[in-house]
Amino acid sequence: MCSPNVAQVVRERIAREGVPQVSRRSFLRMGGLTAGGVAVASMLGPNKLNRMAVARAQEATEVIDLSHVFSVNVPTYLIGEGPKRETFVTVEQDGFYIQKWNFGEHAGTHVDIPAHFVADGTTVDNYDAVNLVSPAVVIDISAKAAEVADATLDVADIEAWESANGEIPAGAVVFLYSGWDAKWNEPEAFRNADADGVQHYPGFSPEAATFLVEQRDIHGIGVDTLSLDIGASTTFDVHVTVLGAGKFGIEGVANLAAIKDRQATVIVGVPRWEEGSGGPARVLALA
Amino acid sequence: MCSPNVAQVVRERIAREGVPQVSRRSFLRMGGLTAGGVAVASMLGPNKLNRMAVARAQEATEVIDLSHVFSVNVPTYLIGEGPKRETFVTVEQDGFYIQKWNFGEHAGTHVDIPAHFVADGTTVDNYDAVNLVSPAVVIDISAKAAEVADATLDVADIEAWESANGEIPAGAVVFLYSGWDAKWNEPEAFRNADADGVQHYPGFSPEAATFLVEQRDIHGIGVDTLSLDIGASTTFDVHVTVLGAGKFGIEGVANLAAIKDRQATVIVGVPRWEEGSGGPARVLALA
Repeated sequence: MCSPNVAQVVRERIAREGVPQVSRRSFLRMGGLTAGGVAVASMLGPNKLNRMAVARAQEATEVIDLSHVFSVNVPTYLIGEGPKRETFVTVEQDGFYIQKWNFGEHAGTHVDIPAHFVADGTTVDNYDAVNLVSPAVVIDISAKAAEVADATLDVADIEAWESANGEIPAGAVVFLYSGWDAKWNEPEAFRNADADGVQHYPGFSPEAATFLVEQRDIHGIGVDTLSLDIGASTTFDVHVTVLGAGKFGIEGVANLAAIKDRQATVIVGVPRWEEGSGGPARVLALA
Repeated sequence: MCSPNVAQVVRERIAREGVPQVSRRSFLRMGGLTAGGVAVASMLGPNKLNRMAVARAQEATEVIDLSHVFSVNVPTYLIGEGPKRETFVTVEQDGFYIQKWNFGEHAGTHVDIPAHFVADGTTVDNYDAVNLVSPAVVIDISAKAAEVADATLDVADIEAWESANGEIPAGAVVFLYSGWDAKWNEPEAFRNADADGVQHYPGFSPEAATFLVEQRDIHGIGVDTLSLDIGASTTFDVHVTVLGAGKFGIEGVANLAAIKDRQATVIVGVPRWEEGSGGPARVLALA
């Protein structure tokens, strides 16, 4: 996600406030290492599989696909930035079939990694794989999203979820379910831009992102829309907070309704794009 | 993997013998469905997670990355077919960082899906996700591969593995470990082409592929080289047999030494490339 006409705002904010956005508590929990001023969770500790992810996998009976088809028609944050493909060879002509692809890293169901917003931040090829296997938490804000496109997942929504389910487990990926994925195959409705070109769809509130990074111990967050922030954001506070803390985001997630009331383990199958800011991924849940 | 100068051989063989290569036993096991004359395992049955994969995940303590970095320098079957990347925007200039990529589907650690060799075969966007979570079996032929580059994984190697470990579990991905991945960062050594341009590295024997498809119930096979067949193959029998039976292959697998003596569950995180013949993937093991 990006838009040249708002880039200046982000750059100025980072210049003014710095990126870390990491509380002393979070910083110490992550071990206090820094790279370019940012704590890097992925460099820390042994490569141990999250125990809750394993415990939940024991109960799983199904593989749920949280990934949309990576298509030339996927909705994109910027108009005209859709992927392109061409047929390279075919079974009929050549004995086997291969396509060639051309795309930017933030298309389709894809991951945002710290380097997307953090100069010298961890790139996806070096991001620790242990963070890619996590317990999934799905917080349903579809009722308010149906009323107001700019709806946010707020701290109160997290508190309500925890009242019903207990505290968000360590190492979780926290997903926002807005129901927006039902519009995926209608790119204009998915972007939902107004007459001024401002997009309108749900996202995390900045306060909720800060709460998850500072008060909980998450691996990342995910949304069924085009951006971790609401579409109308010009400051990308959620991106800055989450990626600045060494966590990841997932945008364009499919099918969260299938796991929102279940215990699930999520596996984020993002290829190791060299020096990548993130990239297209296969996101699977065991539930 | 492909080479225009051998494509004719494959096309003629498929025209002569047909693609199915599926025994009556395998065909009935898969339910007898056909698409373009080929049994399609991925269309069958409920989307149930493989029980052995779950059982093994219970014992897992680590995430092992079986994926190489997807780089512009990866070795490729055809010379000059390496991926390309360019910087699109940067944190310093634009407030955020994104790259653009351009590549063919069979580069880096990647998946081969039936449509790669089967006209009207299943493409990767529609391949059933339940096949992507599997018990892993690693058969070590590194001793003979160190002696002879054209070494094959033979039926006798499978029998020896089963004598020590029991029958290959249902739904397994069977990996050939040759030790070849140690040469990954030296593309010429990895391709190992002779003066005539013929590549020399290990692969499955055609008989081993037929045995696995007909006598065992596998999800797919994988190699730490550039091709499921030996590099010198001109007929691609292993590809035709495995993909023709609706199974998948994984080429360019990394780090198999880390799981070869362990119980492991493998997750094949291949994005849903639209109408894809396979494509770059994140392959993770829980072990």
